[in-house]
Amino acid sequence: MRPLLALALLSLTAATHAPVTPTSIVASAPSSAWRAISPDDLLVIDLKNGRRVIIQLAPRFAPVHVANIRALARASWWDGATVYRVQDNYVVQWGHNEGTAPLPANVVAKPPGEYWRRAAGLKIHPLGYRDSYAPKVGFADGWPVALDRAGKTAALTHCYGFVGVGRDLYPDTGTGGELYAVIGNAPRPLDRNIAVVGRVIEGIDAFSALPRGTGDLGFYTDHAEEVPIARVRLASSLATVDQPSFQYLDTNSASFARYVHARANRKDEFFECPAGGVDICNVPVPIRRTPAR
Amino acid sequence: MRPLLALALLSLTAATHAPVTPTSIVASAPSSAWRAISPDDLLVIDLKNGRRVIIQLAPRFAPVHVANIRALARASWWDGATVYRVQDNYVVQWGHNEGTAPLPANVVAKPPGEYWRRAAGLKIHPLGYRDSYAPKVGFADGWPVALDRAGKTAALTHCYGFVGVGRDLYPDTGTGGELYAVIGNAPRPLDRNIAVVGRVIEGIDAFSALPRGTGDLGFYTDHAEEVPIARVRLASSLATVDQPSFQYLDTNSASFARYVHARANRKDEFFECPAGGVDICNVPVPIRRTPAR
Repeated sequence: MRPLLALALLSLTAATHAPVTPTSIVASAPSSAWRAISPDDLLVIDLKNGRRVIIQLAPRFAPVHVANIRALARASWWDGATVYRVQDNYVVQWGHNEGTAPLPANVVAKPPGEYWRRAAGLKIHPLGYRDSYAPKVGFADGWPVALDRAGKTAALTHCYGFVGVGRDLYPDTGTGGELYAVIGNAPRPLDRNIAVVGRVIEGIDAFSALPRGTGDLGFYTDHAEEVPIARVRLASSLATVDQPSFQYLDTNSASFARYVHARANRKDEFFECPAGGVDICNVPVPIRRTPAR
Repeated sequence: MRPLLALALLSLTAATHAPVTPTSIVASAPSSAWRAISPDDLLVIDLKNGRRVIIQLAPRFAPVHVANIRALARASWWDGATVYRVQDNYVVQWGHNEGTAPLPANVVAKPPGEYWRRAAGLKIHPLGYRDSYAPKVGFADGWPVALDRAGKTAALTHCYGFVGVGRDLYPDTGTGGELYAVIGNAPRPLDRNIAVVGRVIEGIDAFSALPRGTGDLGFYTDHAEEVPIARVRLASSLATVDQPSFQYLDTNSASFARYVHARANRKDEFFECPAGGVDICNVPVPIRRTPAR
């Protein structure tokens, strides 16, 4: 009987002293720590293969580009477009690569840079650990940001799943018609060099598991390889019953602070040697489907 | 004629003042800066679907685990094994997940930790930029390493494509029979918590583009989803004419130092705002097929 007893005691111990992990902290965050995401900020991409990718837009960081993207979605501009580039450990890119689709009249053809914004007006929760690229990093309004030394400007960081605007050589900034999502190690050198407009919050594997393109920069060399897009819509344009609904964890909440600490100091049954630090892209802001009431 | 002339002049300028990029630095490195990789350090994985993945082993960092892996390959132990786990933005894992295949007699069943090694004996080229996880980072023998504050121990870093040894809860270290490769943002919290034994140097997309597993931690829930492995061999076990041959750029060479600088200070036609820093996983050590003489 002894082994059984020992096992029972062990289980009891595990239940009462379950290790605190990032997951357990997020799971126990109070409902007051969660913030709703507006359906105007949700871009829903339906691929013809039946897969769906949902992107949260970041209008406070790239307002002109996001307004363009909303206008393009409302004009059904991407219907029939394709995913035409998949570069391993870098990006997936989609749109009308041939550039033949005329832009709707309400799309700004040459938007301003929007590679960063003034930090004034943002309530920033500092990450509290060293960053390899920026003097300071933190979170604002549920988004990871890199600050300049004086803390006067904030740029969204190129983390896994983040979405940016394809562009030609500087000073072109792109319209928003060609977008890419990061599917590899965070390409942070792109920060402050391109407009970041959002992040994939569901269905990233519909992009990341696609066959890699064999052309330069991962472009598909044969149009037959491209992945057709059925339609792209704002959630707010869908019938109410069809609207996906999401929340993000308030990055100024106590739960989020505990989550950051746990990500930087992994110490549970598996981890024996906590790093005592973490890069901002390894602290993804928790996002969830809005729970049923 | 004017536009044509202007274009011709522009092309001439581009040719004579081509921007220095990481790629151009590597392309112009002298042959004396390249080091051969031993065929005993190349693990060749042939999937049944015809794809090949080649891993460079790191015997100086995890000698017992690498010796196990060589013994397993020589015993054809992985023939008929599968890729059974694909977790998005994390790892692909393979082996005999059911644990039913008996280990060859010359495999050490309980290897020592090998999560890091003494730095003495390594000639380390410092990265020279901040790291989010370790007090110091650099390169040794063609490998990225994270050092402790005193610089006495060095751990291989979990970068994209890096290969580690699946294990149970600590203090188990794994035999080397179950291996994983990183397919997402560098999971550096794993550094010093697991044995890193190498990196994928060719064919990573045969892993990274696989469908993600829908079970917990990305395990495939149905055996039919698993990706069969035809065979795993050391390059040194293949017929000479079939042996792949690779070189890495000497991380103590002048070319490598220039390459690091360029990675941290992207300033070419596309980049307008250099970061002035870089994380070690965004400085992949250049690897190439050995050029024909």
